[in-house]
Amino acid sequence: MKRLSFIWLIVVYYAFAKACPAQTITSPNKAFELKVSLSQEGTPQYQLDYKGDAVVETSSLGFEIKDDEKSLKNDFEMVGTATSTFDETWEPVWGEESEIRNHYNELEVDLKQKETNRLMTLRFRLFDDGLGFRYEFPQQEFTYFIIKEELTEFAMTGDHTAYWIAGDYDTQEYDYTTSKLSEIRGLHESSISGNASQTPIKPTGVQTALMMKTDDGLYINIHEAALIDYSAMHLMLYDENMVFTSHLTPDVNGDKAYMQAPTTTPWRTVIVGDDATDILASRMTYNLNDPVAIEDTSWIKPVKYVGVWWEMITGKSSWSYTDELPAIQLGKTDYSKLEPNSTHAATTEHVKEYIDFAAKHGFDAVLVEGWNVGWEDWFGNSKDYVFDFVTPYPDFDVEEVHEYAQANDVKMIMHHETSGATRNYERHLDTAFQFMKKYDYDAVKTGYVGNVMPRGEHHYGQWLVNHYQYVLEKAADYEIMINAHEAVRPTGIARTYPNLIGNESARGTEFQAFGGSKPNHTTILPFTRLIGGPMDYTPGIFEMDISKLNPLNDSHGNFTIANQLGLYVVMYSPLQMAADLPENYNRFLDAFQFIKDVPVDWSKSVYLEAEPGEYITTARKDKNSDNWFVGNSNGTTPRTALVDLDFLEKGKKYIATIYADAADAHYKTNPQAYKITTKKVTSKSDLKIYTAPGGGFGISIVEVD
Amino acid sequence: MKRLSFIWLIVVYYAFAKACPAQTITSPNKAFELKVSLSQEGTPQYQLDYKGDAVVETSSLGFEIKDDEKSLKNDFEMVGTATSTFDETWEPVWGEESEIRNHYNELEVDLKQKETNRLMTLRFRLFDDGLGFRYEFPQQEFTYFIIKEELTEFAMTGDHTAYWIAGDYDTQEYDYTTSKLSEIRGLHESSISGNASQTPIKPTGVQTALMMKTDDGLYINIHEAALIDYSAMHLMLYDENMVFTSHLTPDVNGDKAYMQAPTTTPWRTVIVGDDATDILASRMTYNLNDPVAIEDTSWIKPVKYVGVWWEMITGKSSWSYTDELPAIQLGKTDYSKLEPNSTHAATTEHVKEYIDFAAKHGFDAVLVEGWNVGWEDWFGNSKDYVFDFVTPYPDFDVEEVHEYAQANDVKMIMHHETSGATRNYERHLDTAFQFMKKYDYDAVKTGYVGNVMPRGEHHYGQWLVNHYQYVLEKAADYEIMINAHEAVRPTGIARTYPNLIGNESARGTEFQAFGGSKPNHTTILPFTRLIGGPMDYTPGIFEMDISKLNPLNDSHGNFTIANQLGLYVVMYSPLQMAADLPENYNRFLDAFQFIKDVPVDWSKSVYLEAEPGEYITTARKDKNSDNWFVGNSNGTTPRTALVDLDFLEKGKKYIATIYADAADAHYKTNPQAYKITTKKVTSKSDLKIYTAPGGGFGISIVEVD
Repeated sequence: MKRLSFIWLIVVYYAFAKACPAQTITSPNKAFELKVSLSQEGTPQYQLDYKGDAVVETSSLGFEIKDDEKSLKNDFEMVGTATSTFDETWEPVWGEESEIRNHYNELEVDLKQKETNRLMTLRFRLFDDGLGFRYEFPQQEFTYFIIKEELTEFAMTGDHTAYWIAGDYDTQEYDYTTSKLSEIRGLHESSISGNASQTPIKPTGVQTALMMKTDDGLYINIHEAALIDYSAMHLMLYDENMVFTSHLTPDVNGDKAYMQAPTTTPWRTVIVGDDATDILASRMTYNLNDPVAIEDTSWIKPVKYVGVWWEMITGKSSWSYTDELPAIQLGKTDYSKLEPNSTHAATTEHVKEYIDFAAKHGFDAVLVEGWNVGWEDWFGNSKDYVFDFVTPYPDFDVEEVHEYAQANDVKMIMHHETSGATRNYERHLDTAFQFMKKYDYDAVKTGYVGNVMPRGEHHYGQWLVNHYQYVLEKAADYEIMINAHEAVRPTGIARTYPNLIGNESARGTEFQAFGGSKPNHTTILPFTRLIGGPMDYTPGIFEMDISKLNPLNDSHGNFTIANQLGLYVVMYSPLQMAADLPENYNRFLDAFQFIKDVPVDWSKSVYLEAEPGEYITTARKDKNSDNWFVGNSNGTTPRTALVDLDFLEKGKKYIATIYADAADAHYKTNPQAYKITTKKVTSKSDLKIYTAPGGGFGISIVEVD
Repeated sequence: MKRLSFIWLIVVYYAFAKACPAQTITSPNKAFELKVSLSQEGTPQYQLDYKGDAVVETSSLGFEIKDDEKSLKNDFEMVGTATSTFDETWEPVWGEESEIRNHYNELEVDLKQKETNRLMTLRFRLFDDGLGFRYEFPQQEFTYFIIKEELTEFAMTGDHTAYWIAGDYDTQEYDYTTSKLSEIRGLHESSISGNASQTPIKPTGVQTALMMKTDDGLYINIHEAALIDYSAMHLMLYDENMVFTSHLTPDVNGDKAYMQAPTTTPWRTVIVGDDATDILASRMTYNLNDPVAIEDTSWIKPVKYVGVWWEMITGKSSWSYTDELPAIQLGKTDYSKLEPNSTHAATTEHVKEYIDFAAKHGFDAVLVEGWNVGWEDWFGNSKDYVFDFVTPYPDFDVEEVHEYAQANDVKMIMHHETSGATRNYERHLDTAFQFMKKYDYDAVKTGYVGNVMPRGEHHYGQWLVNHYQYVLEKAADYEIMINAHEAVRPTGIARTYPNLIGNESARGTEFQAFGGSKPNHTTILPFTRLIGGPMDYTPGIFEMDISKLNPLNDSHGNFTIANQLGLYVVMYSPLQMAADLPENYNRFLDAFQFIKDVPVDWSKSVYLEAEPGEYITTARKDKNSDNWFVGNSNGTTPRTALVDLDFLEKGKKYIATIYADAADAHYKTNPQAYKITTKKVTSKSDLKIYTAPGGGFGISIVEVD
């Protein structure tokens, strides 16, 4: 982070009044007004107005404390308040744009619980695009406490439309449901599909980032920022009055968070906009995180990659090396004496083919899964010592692969599946990272499939949140980039630790080989999962009929080829995979060209048109050239997108190459029908592009002299 | 371990009979007979006879398996049996004797559960001093399972006298109760005293090693050997028929052990003798463990040490550096800006005084507790990041202390209190051990005070057992010796990992400053806690009136000075502390001479007379000379011990220096009354030595020309 500009005006006043007048601030653009007050019972409350109307009606704040009748719910008085203004522009290491403005007005409300003398501060930051607030506990005698529940309310003003997945302590990999808030209860059970680890929050629990739209057409997004050493927040809907309350992920004992003052909670965020594109353009989540904590970030680089992966996901190949034993024991099982199966993908020879393909087409890196011993019984056994992260299978020569990759100027991406055994992973972490450095891997995809250990803990509880952070910070020490799968959904901490270049934490492309996802899935993800940070969504599947890869798998990918291309722009990530097999790309090399051309780092992003569940069209400018790229993902309704190119530099001429759905394309019946056209364009051009059901498009726009 | 002799005769026969005749073996000396059979329901059973009479009546074997109606309880058939004989003599790295014979007859019974085809093997080893047996699960389709409970019975033949402490998942630090088995239920609740972490097993749970005596005068001891990756076993007494059944320590979910075949359980042991000394002389527990796993053991050395410790235990000094804050945060709290308290013990200057004292009196090492930051709020807060194990307090100069110790030819002993935060300890383990090697520490006292983390796990469950083993093995990699406090009680694994030179795992001397222990405590410990391995009991307290150290502490040590001397021989350990303050030793330098002289490693041990709860007299020969030492601990009844010196070499002349209770000595009223006499002795001599209530004696016997 380089600090570009910095204005910080502090206006402080301390009101030690016995009476508690409501405290009010507005956003810098005056669109928002926040009121903070105490109820008759001394319960802190806030209300958020946008353009004169309530967006969040009066909502209570506080905590249930374990073994404490009093808790932190009421009996508070204000002992001081302070307001200030902050305005700074910073440069992210990677991102949707090269500069981010962090501009807010702040209100600090210092509370004292009268009977107990406990101190709690509320800090509100009001941006031009919404509100962030958190709880702070200054140093005091009230030092250690256990949160039984956080009591933060978000009182909605009506029966909004929501784009939601069920709250769950262990998975986020659900298909989205679009419904009225009042319909969540009835749809909740049917919204839940099977997962390797899942603990749904009934009866009305939903996950953040939660996207909503009011009947008046206002867009509202609730999430959190800077989730550090705390449990992830879900929202429970009280649908008699449309009030959400926070519902934290419990630990094995049902406790929600262990606290030691001085400390703070994560920020709770409410992003609001008149247009859905306002939500996509918001940088509030990053702005509420701390500035970068890594001194030298020069080793952190966006990555476009291919990998030995989709063939295992589809069941064409296997991660495991042998089928001979019902189970193996690391250090005791002698693989050299076991019969290899015929399906193991991560062989030296096969990986070299991927390296050849990556080198030929200009990819940065190759991911290889299933290279290390332990995959025979890795899953579902609550096995502790499941992997050691450094011992390759007999048919994978790590040294030879390393040398071959280096000779071809391709990086290898490491894979650390933990099977949820976090103690085992932490025990091997130093060795595993040292092994990576030895063989020149500088990025690792981590995985937490299945129920976690310590047994009874959940993927999104404080214990695990602390673990992911530990891995991230240790990786930074080793100058290693992390792409964490099945970890907690991101909350903008990549601002502080930009070596977190990816997360899964949602239903990724793999589900297209597990029975499919809804065709409009990727028109919702940018409004939900991506609010907290980039997703390793692994797009780029060109063969939707999975049975062509594995006759036993009758899944169908619910998208068109043009849609897949559009995702490289719509679904921002500094880490982008071309997930399909080389043989499938070789069949459609003209379409593949877009994937080869599309950058993974940007200087500007323009959100042209968007409606959650329906469509998104996004334009971005390459960080390393003057080229622009436009992407679209379309839902189930065929549609013609209007692409206004006025973001192009005035007076310049460009050639646009348009990768679009053919007129008869359809995600189900004709997904591989696309057409590629080129057109001369300027900033005055408008493009009208047809998008099929489950379709989309990609456009590359290159300046011509 | 050097293999001295080796005889292994295998006599195998496989009986694939439909009928299941009882299988029988005898011990090498024919004193024991073991019968193994199947009940009508196909439940495996065993019976142990000694000299023609049952010691353990017909007792069932098996398991309750989680989520499995069938479990491993019945429906078994024998599919094979095998017998063999083993006879080997091995040399321990340290111990009560320089050679140990491992001689047994073995019976293997291979079982198949008829309906499920699950395989389970029972392996019995019958020694001349008792029985060891375990369960084994060969490789099979039945691979992963969760034990809800182990169903091993030990059916007693009558209402024996037992020397017991309450079963507990988190502490062993109780005073012993002597009672009939039938009285355990009634005395159970009152046997439980407070502890920093405790989860008593009601209503009749007791701990192993459990010592018993029958009305016929037979001594029986039940324990376990080789507790690796399994939960520690307690015994629940069904007092309607005097049957003990195994009761494993649960995890947070109530599960007892996670298993993956091929695997085995620990050994269950029954040591039996006509004389109480037979129990003390048994080496069965070590023999049932694997041979040494460390190639070069030359760095493992017995240690006699003093330490900055008793002054904190008594409350004279503090571990913590400052009283200024209610809590601290490692890495955030700046100690250099805090006011030091006046009680912090581990200052450079004070530690140097201990080094001077150690050097002057020939001690090997000095332990220092409270040297590292974090002690201000280390305990009882379920704090995760409680210590980092490498950052000294501002007033402790680790470099200066290191140099001073080295110049004085004294080793420093490291201290790693974890406060039960095992994840935090494992995260810092490499760094902490590297820090130790840098400053030339080669032994560490570890501690697990308070409730453990992961929260809800217990000190003696599989998760923690695995942790202690992990630390032990990693320490071996660094050539570091471990003395683990509050860890699970030892089960002979020091044979395999002799760098485990000590454990606490029972009520140590510290309780004499916490209100006192029963005067006969140390006449029981060698029959119970010490069966599995040495204890860091920290004897050598010369000032019993604790208020003389700390006026606010009115505790009284319930022993005499002569008793304390005797413990250095009675309570075998390769790690012995002289726990009192230098100033107290300086008051009694003639008695202190025994502590200076007594060795910590032995070539022979002779158990002269013993009765649990009453007295123990033990003679041992120095491993590095021809000197002998005799020690006695006496219970509450005054007594004259008869010490028959016929273990001395025939024809040689010796001078015995006898450190005995004075005639008017008494643990309560006159504990510091001792007399030192010398006498010429030979192998024909008998010594009669008076021992006071709570008394004892120490004798050094040196050859004279």
